[in-house]
Amino acid sequence: MAKPKKTPRPKAQTPKGFRDYFGTDVTDRADMLSKIAGVYHRYGFDALESSAVETVEALGKFLPDVDRPNEGVFAWQEEDGDWLALRYDMTAPLARVYAQHRNDLPNPYRRYTMGPVWRNEKPGPGRFRQFYQCDADTVGTASMAADAEICAMLSDTLEAVGIQRGDYVIRINNRKVLNGVMEVAGLAGDDKEAERGIVLRAIDKLDRLGQDGVRALLSEGRKDESGDFTKGAGLSEADADVVMGFMDAQRATGPETVARLRELVDGSDIGTKGVAELEEIAALLDALGYGPDRIIIDPSVVRGLGYYTGPVYEAELTFDVQNEKGQTVQFGSVAGGGRYDDLVKRFTGQEVPATGVSIGVDRLLAALRATNRIGTTEQGPVVVTVMDRDRMADYQAMVAELRSAGIRAEVYLGNPKNFGNQLKYADKRGSPIAIIEGGDENERGVVQIKDLILGAKIAETATHEEWKDRPSQFEVPRDQMLAKVKEILNQ
Amino acid sequence: MAKPKKTPRPKAQTPKGFRDYFGTDVTDRADMLSKIAGVYHRYGFDALESSAVETVEALGKFLPDVDRPNEGVFAWQEEDGDWLALRYDMTAPLARVYAQHRNDLPNPYRRYTMGPVWRNEKPGPGRFRQFYQCDADTVGTASMAADAEICAMLSDTLEAVGIQRGDYVIRINNRKVLNGVMEVAGLAGDDKEAERGIVLRAIDKLDRLGQDGVRALLSEGRKDESGDFTKGAGLSEADADVVMGFMDAQRATGPETVARLRELVDGSDIGTKGVAELEEIAALLDALGYGPDRIIIDPSVVRGLGYYTGPVYEAELTFDVQNEKGQTVQFGSVAGGGRYDDLVKRFTGQEVPATGVSIGVDRLLAALRATNRIGTTEQGPVVVTVMDRDRMADYQAMVAELRSAGIRAEVYLGNPKNFGNQLKYADKRGSPIAIIEGGDENERGVVQIKDLILGAKIAETATHEEWKDRPSQFEVPRDQMLAKVKEILNQ
Repeated sequence: MAKPKKTPRPKAQTPKGFRDYFGTDVTDRADMLSKIAGVYHRYGFDALESSAVETVEALGKFLPDVDRPNEGVFAWQEEDGDWLALRYDMTAPLARVYAQHRNDLPNPYRRYTMGPVWRNEKPGPGRFRQFYQCDADTVGTASMAADAEICAMLSDTLEAVGIQRGDYVIRINNRKVLNGVMEVAGLAGDDKEAERGIVLRAIDKLDRLGQDGVRALLSEGRKDESGDFTKGAGLSEADADVVMGFMDAQRATGPETVARLRELVDGSDIGTKGVAELEEIAALLDALGYGPDRIIIDPSVVRGLGYYTGPVYEAELTFDVQNEKGQTVQFGSVAGGGRYDDLVKRFTGQEVPATGVSIGVDRLLAALRATNRIGTTEQGPVVVTVMDRDRMADYQAMVAELRSAGIRAEVYLGNPKNFGNQLKYADKRGSPIAIIEGGDENERGVVQIKDLILGAKIAETATHEEWKDRPSQFEVPRDQMLAKVKEILNQ
Repeated sequence: MAKPKKTPRPKAQTPKGFRDYFGTDVTDRADMLSKIAGVYHRYGFDALESSAVETVEALGKFLPDVDRPNEGVFAWQEEDGDWLALRYDMTAPLARVYAQHRNDLPNPYRRYTMGPVWRNEKPGPGRFRQFYQCDADTVGTASMAADAEICAMLSDTLEAVGIQRGDYVIRINNRKVLNGVMEVAGLAGDDKEAERGIVLRAIDKLDRLGQDGVRALLSEGRKDESGDFTKGAGLSEADADVVMGFMDAQRATGPETVARLRELVDGSDIGTKGVAELEEIAALLDALGYGPDRIIIDPSVVRGLGYYTGPVYEAELTFDVQNEKGQTVQFGSVAGGGRYDDLVKRFTGQEVPATGVSIGVDRLLAALRATNRIGTTEQGPVVVTVMDRDRMADYQAMVAELRSAGIRAEVYLGNPKNFGNQLKYADKRGSPIAIIEGGDENERGVVQIKDLILGAKIAETATHEEWKDRPSQFEVPRDQMLAKVKEILNQ
């Protein structure tokens, strides 16, 4: 007879594409976010934490017109029929919050927010389905001063967390200029949307495809190495020249770049307006002393998102790192944003101009680690070992004494029988010091202090010559324990 | 002919039971959590942030045996058939994390975590479906020293965030003692589970039903005001006496309470073990100086959750507040926890003892507000008004100067035409000071400083007598602006 089946044990695993963060992964990020919040606060931005869950209709873009509207989002249906979803960014929720609370909020409304967002995408190496974003936006003003302010604030923020001047650059462009270039190249009008899409994607691929590849996509099309053919935008040679000229419009100084862009969009109202906006931002930043060592005008910045309507900006880290293949590459983008004047309108029917930036928190943290701005490990606690199970209260009193002097300390709470295990534990904890007090020490009113950092150094050295005058374990009277521990920790 | 229907505008609303947090709601909580993390860190607890999303099977309790397993959780099905869900507490994810990473974690593993959890419950007034929890747990040790340590740490934590000694009490009990009492009252054995449930619920209702009501539920049953009858546990008079005696077992001192409990569970092994555990915790806390002004043994603490297996503890704030009905009541519970030795076993098959506490973050924050430990408002930024749209760069330079001295400051970015609107804006922002510099001031090299706090005071006073020597608006040379602002802000 078959045995009755037991319920199988659940697998102890994060769902695919999710991860856990331990120790300094959590605290380093919290420290960095706290520094960022400090800058944002000083700029007059107020904190906001919107709910992680939104209605699918409020999030937009992902409408419940299919059986399961989980294209890109994690969504589920409520008993009352409503579809809810986890936010996939901080901008859509901001538009909802502003529309909902606009009568109570200051106008313009400057806000910052930091927290996790969720994407229902195929997970890949280093690509997670939950990650942190940290955004700052100004809602309710069309003034270019708002865009300039956010670029200046982004610059201050990067330096506040530890990225040095010269190790980053903030690039600014304007979508209206790009639209003007399209207009000049004959791609205005609703019937040219597909072609404009091809041009946008081609510009975004300049790094990868090179000038020739992009030009092929602008005209007839391009066959890639595998033989697959990608249809082009069908531009004439002259029109393609206009677009190519746009990508190549950067000059030595901001004013020269602006002058070149003005030539390129000649005859296009929207393009000319975009150039004027760029010029205004550049003048404001210049007056504040944010020169090209920090912020530059760069026509090659496009930004993927469809909703941008004016200035777009991007922060890039320019120092070199090794990629997974061992090649030396620039670290790259850590933040980006721009002006989006139509998002609140979805709710209220009225146009509400807005602009804002989003920092990729995990990437910025990785950058700080790559440049040794923050350590990846921290010193563990002082571990008080347990020599005599019945004297737990005495050991607890020792850690309490250390803690009240601000020193991180803990009693070993595992099975105390095997003393070797206690030292292995202290090692795993990264402990600088272990305290030992057996019955003999207790009678004599002393404790043993084991300097684990020094001990590790001695173990690494072939001869003990160098350390012979510094024993890594010594005895001190119990009432001098705290003073000695402080001395070893340089506190 | 009917007009073509437009897509209706989405409603700008948080989903039912969710809310947004603004300004100090966010920053006060962050400050409080940072203080709590400081205490936990000093006790040797490591930070952990597990993913917000778990597989339904890892969360447990909510198995996908119905079409939609959303009893209490927000859950959805992945394309590959797996059910995922938002975590509903921090304990189930800890068990999963420990089982998954146990070979890399120190043993015992002390960890703390803070973040939102989600409950798919019917929302009610003041009851939200997303809220914060802040937990500390020690996994991998059966030692009562771990439980004592968490109670001491909870006490330190409450004082660190601003709850004064005397305004709180931590109550400790032990589930084994309760099980022992049940055994003595004849309710041991698998066939008595329903009766044990009735007794547990009856004890939990002592506050509301009083001694007579509880006693009725212990014996035959009870008819409430509406005439509905609740079946009782069917205990004899003598057995009901045992249970009633348990609830009434608290004595003037810990040792006396322990002695009384020992009498009550006489003859029950599990009960006697529970009393010994309570005694051990009490002795450890006593040796560390955590007396009955902070931590007491209280047999009436039961804790709702089914998974507790030993010590249970609860922190209660004892000061009075007004409830919604205007009645004066004690603030009540803000944290609770206990020992749960079976949760990791679900994954690994091996019993892993664990104990931990969870702080109700929103309630503790409300308590700090109720006792004025933290303000509910903060001072807004200095607002630099815009008198001349073309001189935006000058105004930006003013705020930059203020900020570099650490002063929160912003330029008005709305339409500057109506100066009254700018002052209304400054008022809405809670600004202490507005700066005004028109063309005339600019020519003369001065700025106007408007002391808005003083101005508000003057407006409140019937006569200006009191303030006549202190004008609320005055002129200073531009290069003295910073010094004067600092003076007004007492910086």
